[in-house]
Amino acid sequence: MSKELLTWMEPALSLAMPALGVLAIGLAAATAAQAADPLPSWSDTAAKKAIVEFVTRVTAEGSPDFVPAAERIAVFDNDGTLWSERPLPFQAVFALDRIKALAPQHPEWKEQEPFASLLKGDLKAALAGGERAVLQVLMAGHAGMTTDEFTKIVEDWISTARHPKTGRLYTEMVYQPMLELLAYFRSNGFKTFIVSGGGIEFMRPWAERVYGIPPEQVIGSSIKTKYEIRDGKPILVRLPETNFIDDQAGKPVGINMHIGRRPIAAFGNSDGDHQMLQWTAAGGGARFMGLIHHTDAEREWAYDKIAIGSLDKALVEAKARGWTVVSMKDDWKRVFPFDTK
Amino acid sequence: MSKELLTWMEPALSLAMPALGVLAIGLAAATAAQAADPLPSWSDTAAKKAIVEFVTRVTAEGSPDFVPAAERIAVFDNDGTLWSERPLPFQAVFALDRIKALAPQHPEWKEQEPFASLLKGDLKAALAGGERAVLQVLMAGHAGMTTDEFTKIVEDWISTARHPKTGRLYTEMVYQPMLELLAYFRSNGFKTFIVSGGGIEFMRPWAERVYGIPPEQVIGSSIKTKYEIRDGKPILVRLPETNFIDDQAGKPVGINMHIGRRPIAAFGNSDGDHQMLQWTAAGGGARFMGLIHHTDAEREWAYDKIAIGSLDKALVEAKARGWTVVSMKDDWKRVFPFDTK
Repeated sequence: MSKELLTWMEPALSLAMPALGVLAIGLAAATAAQAADPLPSWSDTAAKKAIVEFVTRVTAEGSPDFVPAAERIAVFDNDGTLWSERPLPFQAVFALDRIKALAPQHPEWKEQEPFASLLKGDLKAALAGGERAVLQVLMAGHAGMTTDEFTKIVEDWISTARHPKTGRLYTEMVYQPMLELLAYFRSNGFKTFIVSGGGIEFMRPWAERVYGIPPEQVIGSSIKTKYEIRDGKPILVRLPETNFIDDQAGKPVGINMHIGRRPIAAFGNSDGDHQMLQWTAAGGGARFMGLIHHTDAEREWAYDKIAIGSLDKALVEAKARGWTVVSMKDDWKRVFPFDTK
Repeated sequence: MSKELLTWMEPALSLAMPALGVLAIGLAAATAAQAADPLPSWSDTAAKKAIVEFVTRVTAEGSPDFVPAAERIAVFDNDGTLWSERPLPFQAVFALDRIKALAPQHPEWKEQEPFASLLKGDLKAALAGGERAVLQVLMAGHAGMTTDEFTKIVEDWISTARHPKTGRLYTEMVYQPMLELLAYFRSNGFKTFIVSGGGIEFMRPWAERVYGIPPEQVIGSSIKTKYEIRDGKPILVRLPETNFIDDQAGKPVGINMHIGRRPIAAFGNSDGDHQMLQWTAAGGGARFMGLIHHTDAEREWAYDKIAIGSLDKALVEAKARGWTVVSMKDDWKRVFPFDTK
């Protein structure tokens, strides 16, 4: 657990938060997908061909690879797979914004680490306390309220906070090709699930609106909750105690706990998704394993093999086993919905 | 946790396992439901009227109580709500059968409690060790294998083990009116979920076939699992460690964890379901809370207010708040699918 938790906020140590340089990108919303092509933002490369061929094989009745609709389960990592994760994972920005919002109620934080350093903007000093510091930051902003109150906090933040580079809402920083892919799978009878290291209750308030994925198909990390009757009203209180870390070897565990059957398709973008891809690949019959490779420094970011939170082992196994590696630069015509091309 | 675990096997202490008196009930399978009436096994009493009126209100577009399909979540307890639970909860029988099956590999059990007493058929002496004894019995039979192996064990048992009173497969000891109710909800756009104190991986292998409820809509108690690569193959190993007890105050927690939104309809039959009914009732808009009351000593069993695992507080609240209490004797024309009337 310690490693995963540290992993979650580690990019902060190596990447300085850029100034709020909002790019004035025009609102030239791209036209809707062509009716004939369910994946218009995908280039006509091997990745797209492999996806379409897989879906055709598992849905064609009489095909030796036919899979009944009830078993067409596709799972998707979120950070870096469905939306961006730079310069910080977006939930880390949320956690830091929570500390700033709560600071007036906590005058003691001015003297108390990691909060004192955080409030001065010194992320590196704040996180010098390691896992304990990360937990303190997370729990201070994510626990202590009811589930309904937390949902409201997330909804407020997600509808107002803006990305430091693009000035867009974070829910606009989603990948247009992946939105098309989710819809394409669903129109072929698949159930689509998110399987993310991010917080399950951080994603659920907006995943249905943004991705078309209902709350019951969102799997993520969680803290414990406790049922209580307060003033005659039943509530669930969020406790400052880790319940489950849905990352790395936790992903197959989370999939088994929430879905109870093995996916036939899985998409990730880092070593945090490696075990989920392995678990999916190990089932019988036709399988699709996709690894999103961040290769586009111009339209998004280009990165892998950074110290922590890297794409390294999964990429090696993907190449060895013939999993589909999706290069954002080469395989996607467009990255974000707001891109003009 | 201790109380819930003890609760789970407690009926064994007060109810002796009857001899295997298989009743020779004819296989006169009842005719299919009348097309005009989706609930043909329900008597035309207030309970049925209340159910139909609720479904009509939440599905009629333009109705002030209209609920979008995505939010039509109905949750059902399993033991005593969808299938019988007498003379022992069926998973307790499974657990005892597991001990018998494993005994040849464990000669030491002949001298070791609680196994020695269990193998002599003395349930009461076996459970004198309290929670620790119950846990030992559960973990001995439910842990130590992979998830795939456990699924196979459950499938083998559920397709061969027979109820001591009726001689039927346990999956035949389900309530015909509730099967109709599940189908009726689904045909009106509801998603139906099981929320049971029973084991999540004990129910999933057969819930889809028997109830039409897919694994991802089954919520229950669980032990921890661990991802491993064994002989080059990814597996999930079931560990002898409790993960979650989905009973009493655990039910709203389980609902929030797996579904992430509040049900608008809930059915239970005991105080173990009380908090789930409260949680469902506390949401806004139209709600349906149903309590199955075991009042039919002739066709099923008549019981409540027994020492542990009782229907007591939930029944008091149901009457005070106008929740629907379903009397099996008065409100159901037929109980089991194999009943001739």
